Amino acid sequence: MLGQQLENVRKKEPLIHNITNYVTVNDCANILLACGGSPIMADYVGEVEEITAICAGLNINMGTLNPDTISAMVAAGKKSNQLGHPVVLDPVGVGASALRVKAANILTNEVRFTTIRGNSSEIKTLAYGQGTTRGVDADLVDVVTEETIEDTIVFAKSLSERMGSIIAISGAIDIVADTKKAYVIRNGHAMMSRVTGTGCMLSALTSAYLAANPLTPLEATAAAVCAMGLCGEQAFRRLDQLDGNSSYRNYLIDAMYHLDGETLETGARYEEC
Amino acid sequence: MLGQQLENVRKKEPLIHNITNYVTVNDCANILLACGGSPIMADYVGEVEEITAICAGLNINMGTLNPDTISAMVAAGKKSNQLGHPVVLDPVGVGASALRVKAANILTNEVRFTTIRGNSSEIKTLAYGQGTTRGVDADLVDVVTEETIEDTIVFAKSLSERMGSIIAISGAIDIVADTKKAYVIRNGHAMMSRVTGTGCMLSALTSAYLAANPLTPLEATAAAVCAMGLCGEQAFRRLDQLDGNSSYRNYLIDAMYHLDGETLETGARYEEC
Amino acid sequence: MLGQQLENVRKKEPLIHNITNYVTVNDCANILLACGGSPIMADYVGEVEEITAICAGLNINMGTLNPDTISAMVAAGKKSNQLGHPVVLDPVGVGASALRVKAANILTNEVRFTTIRGNSSEIKTLAYGQGTTRGVDADLVDVVTEETIEDTIVFAKSLSERMGSIIAISGAIDIVADTKKAYVIRNGHAMMSRVTGTGCMLSALTSAYLAANPLTPLEATAAAVCAMGLCGEQAFRRLDQLDGNSSYRNYLIDAMYHLDGETLETGARYEEC
Repeated sequence: MLGQQLENVRKKEPLIHNITNYVTVNDCANILLACGGSPIMADYVGEVEEITAICAGLNINMGTLNPDTISAMVAAGKKSNQLGHPVVLDPVGVGASALRVKAANILTNEVRFTTIRGNSSEIKTLAYGQGTTRGVDADLVDVVTEETIEDTIVFAKSLSERMGSIIAISGAIDIVADTKKAYVIRNGHAMMSRVTGTGCMLSALTSAYLAANPLTPLEATAAAVCAMGLCGEQAFRRLDQLDGNSSYRNYLIDAMYHLDGETLETGARYEEC
Repeated sequence: MLGQQLENVRKKEPLIHNITNYVTVNDCANILLACGGSPIMADYVGEVEEITAICAGLNINMGTLNPDTISAMVAAGKKSNQLGHPVVLDPVGVGASALRVKAANILTNEVRFTTIRGNSSEIKTLAYGQGTTRGVDADLVDVVTEETIEDTIVFAKSLSERMGSIIAISGAIDIVADTKKAYVIRNGHAMMSRVTGTGCMLSALTSAYLAANPLTPLEATAAAVCAMGLCGEQAFRRLDQLDGNSSYRNYLIDAMYHLDGETLETGARYEEC
Repeated sequence: MLGQQLENVRKKEPLIHNITNYVTVNDCANILLACGGSPIMADYVGEVEEITAICAGLNINMGTLNPDTISAMVAAGKKSNQLGHPVVLDPVGVGASALRVKAANILTNEVRFTTIRGNSSEIKTLAYGQGTTRGVDADLVDVVTEETIEDTIVFAKSLSERMGSIIAISGAIDIVADTKKAYVIRNGHAMMSRVTGTGCMLSALTSAYLAANPLTPLEATAAAVCAMGLCGEQAFRRLDQLDGNSSYRNYLIDAMYHLDGETLETGARYEEC
């Protein structure tokens, strides 16, 4: 089932509009090309509605935002909603500043997101209006563990209900949930946190999976999360003695370039709850 | 002949001012260093004239533009014209929005470009004022094929006349033309389209080749196009089983780092028409 | 002694706020992760004080600045000063434009920098108010040689006195000095100048070393300079025949990922003067 989500991306080659940060934008573009999609970046409010209109999906990432880009995000998000395109929100570092909390509030009020993807601290901040965000990484107290899985699923389903969005919580254990069903995903590797932008890349990837699978957004999101994690595992196995986080980034994108539906089907480690 | 164009870049080490997008800017900087040039990026209107004045060439790329950067592009372009520096225009995604069409009009009216380089859709949009741009990639109906080469050469020479610029149309077959002469170039590899920024990198490279070869701008542009394509071929041959588009990007820049005039002379595949 | 500076970064995992250019920002993020730190980038004036407050250090890089980011740099710098956080200034290309000279003046007047790091032309421009900056690279007449080491040390100590900052001058020979003591460092490799951002990465790295070693800022700066140079040497030894500047960049960050205190202690080549 998840393998088919991937194959649809390769078949449909969705063009994805990204309004994203300038730190990891190149990696987001290359992961979209790796998975079979195509990227376009544009963040000026005066053109984002037109850009979104020629695309199949929209990826909004709050990594390095300012009032101008927030306006562009809202305009593009509303247009995508009108056109029925999937929209992903990556609330990077929400909770790290009042501006980010406010931006997240504006965005979630004005735009309907198909999927909201972040680490546990970011998602909790979205849910409770404040959090313990330590920069762009999850705070230790928020991390999903075997002991907190059940509670996190309840939390994610409830937040999904409130937001009208699929909720994807990234970490060593990933949770992807809509109001009724959750995927608990155990793909991935700890080294992914030693490369900048693995979360941003996953959000871009999720946009492509959603765009190519409009009828199965939950499965598409789960497939993207499994695919990213599986590539993280493959990239780790490829490391030689001298390779570090920079080579790891290349191997991760390389792995996505080669990933096919069958390998994803075989390698995905998840339970449905 | 083309080999000499390359050697002149290594000898003169031209400093190139880039006003470019934030997606592929790092790759543009590294390809300039790889070819023997040196990059500087600056896009604030209040300093671009001074920056351009200390450079040997200017590369204007419309990838992620806004009104502020358009003003900077015009100011830097005019200053470069005054100083007799070569100026390249890469009209990324023109046709994808009214802003981009307008920006391209302003730029081509206010600035004289030595070379305008884009894919076939972008160049057609420049010529006809509207197009079928699918984001940043060429639309299938616009792609240059064996059947349309002759027509494209006529089109390119005519556009060169109208614009007062060398026209470089990138694709599986590349056309580089001034008013009288055209190069049909068959270097390159399809995998170049699976990496973000190969077009942007070529535009940056072209700026360096023009700056180092002021008396032979057509040959310099053709040499840059052949060099980029040849590096794309070499990078492809270097791929191992696990390598994907991220390693390919690295190999492409690596190949440019090692390319010398003799190898370019031998590997360039082109006809003059 | 220098090895301990490195180990403290791995132990304390300092979060570093970067207000930096969009050219090399991804490499800065990855080198911070490689050394054991953690990066956050934010440059909107309305949030930088909050962002800096949750960090352990601040890295200000003038690479692609404009009036908005200058305001953000000043606000973040003052806040960091209040909080007693270390602040690094990388005056990229100062002297290339009036804006950059003015920005450097504003910054050095309004913010107390723990360390100011640049190439010899940039540091001389800071000292004398004007210079011979050739873009972002040092002018040949400014380069530190065996013959000019003594004079450069006197200059650096005197500038340190005037600025209240540690002065780090990068080049084939590096000088790191406070008012009383200087390190002359001979690590590094010429190929580092063929990759964009090695200077920017060093400034980011220095911020992490300073944040993890608050009581020994001179040693921390010297350790960062040695570490970067040593990684440049290791990366060079790793190059195979086809590798160029793009692979070199990856190997450099990879080397930082693996560098430990003992290796730094053994590999650092410096004299104290």
